[in-house]
Amino acid sequence: MAEPVRPSEDALIARWFRPLATDPASFRLGDDCASLTPPPGADLVLKTDAVAAGIHFFADDPWDAVAAKALRVNLSDLAAKGARPLGYLLSLALPADWRVDQMEAFAAGLGADQARFGVALWGGDTIRSPDGLVISITAIGAVPQGRMVRRGGARPGDRLYVSGTLGDAALGLMLRLDPDRASAWGLTPAARDHLLARYLLPEPRVALAPAILAHARGAMDLSDGLVIDAGRMARSSGVSIRIGAAAVPLSPAAAHALEAEPGLLRAILAGGDDYELLVAVPAAAASDFERAAADCGIGVTAIGTVGAAPVDADAPIVTITGSDDRAIAIGAEGFRHF
Amino acid sequence: MAEPVRPSEDALIARWFRPLATDPASFRLGDDCASLTPPPGADLVLKTDAVAAGIHFFADDPWDAVAAKALRVNLSDLAAKGARPLGYLLSLALPADWRVDQMEAFAAGLGADQARFGVALWGGDTIRSPDGLVISITAIGAVPQGRMVRRGGARPGDRLYVSGTLGDAALGLMLRLDPDRASAWGLTPAARDHLLARYLLPEPRVALAPAILAHARGAMDLSDGLVIDAGRMARSSGVSIRIGAAAVPLSPAAAHALEAEPGLLRAILAGGDDYELLVAVPAAAASDFERAAADCGIGVTAIGTVGAAPVDADAPIVTITGSDDRAIAIGAEGFRHF
Repeated sequence: MAEPVRPSEDALIARWFRPLATDPASFRLGDDCASLTPPPGADLVLKTDAVAAGIHFFADDPWDAVAAKALRVNLSDLAAKGARPLGYLLSLALPADWRVDQMEAFAAGLGADQARFGVALWGGDTIRSPDGLVISITAIGAVPQGRMVRRGGARPGDRLYVSGTLGDAALGLMLRLDPDRASAWGLTPAARDHLLARYLLPEPRVALAPAILAHARGAMDLSDGLVIDAGRMARSSGVSIRIGAAAVPLSPAAAHALEAEPGLLRAILAGGDDYELLVAVPAAAASDFERAAADCGIGVTAIGTVGAAPVDADAPIVTITGSDDRAIAIGAEGFRHF
Repeated sequence: MAEPVRPSEDALIARWFRPLATDPASFRLGDDCASLTPPPGADLVLKTDAVAAGIHFFADDPWDAVAAKALRVNLSDLAAKGARPLGYLLSLALPADWRVDQMEAFAAGLGADQARFGVALWGGDTIRSPDGLVISITAIGAVPQGRMVRRGGARPGDRLYVSGTLGDAALGLMLRLDPDRASAWGLTPAARDHLLARYLLPEPRVALAPAILAHARGAMDLSDGLVIDAGRMARSSGVSIRIGAAAVPLSPAAAHALEAEPGLLRAILAGGDDYELLVAVPAAAASDFERAAADCGIGVTAIGTVGAAPVDADAPIVTITGSDDRAIAIGAEGFRHF
């Protein structure tokens, strides 16, 4: 069989990436570097996150979703910091057997998200991967100087919110690995598809960034599961966190699955890939935050409270309580991408 | 055999990466993002470049050199733009069988280069690689606003310079692939080691950046070979470039090999991985540029001139001339990383 003709990196850039380089900072990818004039009075917020085939997505996932996921996991972090996204750099390691239709889809996935989230491709590098698609994106956003919302800003008395619903992606991954569970959970096809879609492609809460910037004291995105990420917020902030399991917002699909199999609570609270935002808001600003979130069309739900750091060093810094207000054991591992 | 204990990503960050996060922008890697207050009056110059095992380095290369190479290929680009490096973000895809001593070396390699080039780690992500080490770095530097030196800035009449010596890395790669060539070329062990070292670890011309910023009209770094990269500069600039082969600076080791095997001229001029800088300087500024380069301790050599774009669209935009001033054919492919 004849080896397919592989376009050079220059040809690949011209065909698929130059159309995405709509910002003057990128020089239409015609230079070795991008040049960004920072918005006056702004700090830049920088994030790099990578996803790899077989680790963060399945090798047979469609490349438009894979590309969008790679971008969105970064935009999710910027949103948690109250930052407005500006642009990104793409580092793409392509397996030897990539196909033109896959690259078409890849570029289309990025293009659609660029339009939706107001970002542009500033630069990148394309190399051959030792094995499997590896995508690393560095996303850059802006906040007013000194105003990035920190993970470690939560203070005792704050109310703890999450955006959207939790656990969908973790359940979606379980369904992906074992499709038979859909019937065991009594899911309608639509409910099953909802969960699968939430794993395939997270929804970064970019629109919530202004509300976070205006009202939050501490915030982070949830990528490794609520339990482990709340632990990170609590440790960084020097506080404890108490979360009511019954208050955690669930999609109808997740609620249905949980009813069928109560043991799924662990996957919902400790599973990963939510890419929802965990936000600590001073009690006095809570109603303003809720109103601002509603104004930008993103549901937020109060799931707990921030307290003083435990006096006893062995005491848990994150407590999940059941309906009787007693602590329930979830296991603190969460999901480890690594 | 018991599976070795793998530290969590948090533990890995704490042990090897937090010590590298010496800049306040990184929050000691204790947050989800970095926050950079841009230097007043500066544009930020952004670059992302990736290297992968088996593609850009050998799987058995020492990890301190691999880490340094990943950083240096990015610093080289910033230097070509006249930019002062500030910091970088690291995206690291680790193979499943990584070892503690390799990570020690990796961090040590980055640490040494941070000290040498005045940069700090701002953030990063560590994931599991599908196969083999893949390192993607985004480096960020600063230039006075609007002053990034473009690849496309060369103008007819400019003199064309390169830093350092060319071809060493290409010959080093040949020696790596076929160690017997060292004796065929009559190299001393020291000469052989010089060429091997130049492939293993490029020398980014960071110190040359101020001279480029002050005097150059166009510049880029040479990663894919002089012939192909000069072609890129010529095309971007809308000019032609004429290079005298005899003027191209060679190390004593490369000169010795070339004398033994004249056919190596092609590898020297069209091979990759030089990471030297190609700089177009107006004739009137040439002596100032040479003096500034000498002041910062980096050798630069005039290798050719910039002319008008060829009238005939089929005429070559880059001409390499022999000692009789006639064009010699090199082949324009250069080295393709991709």
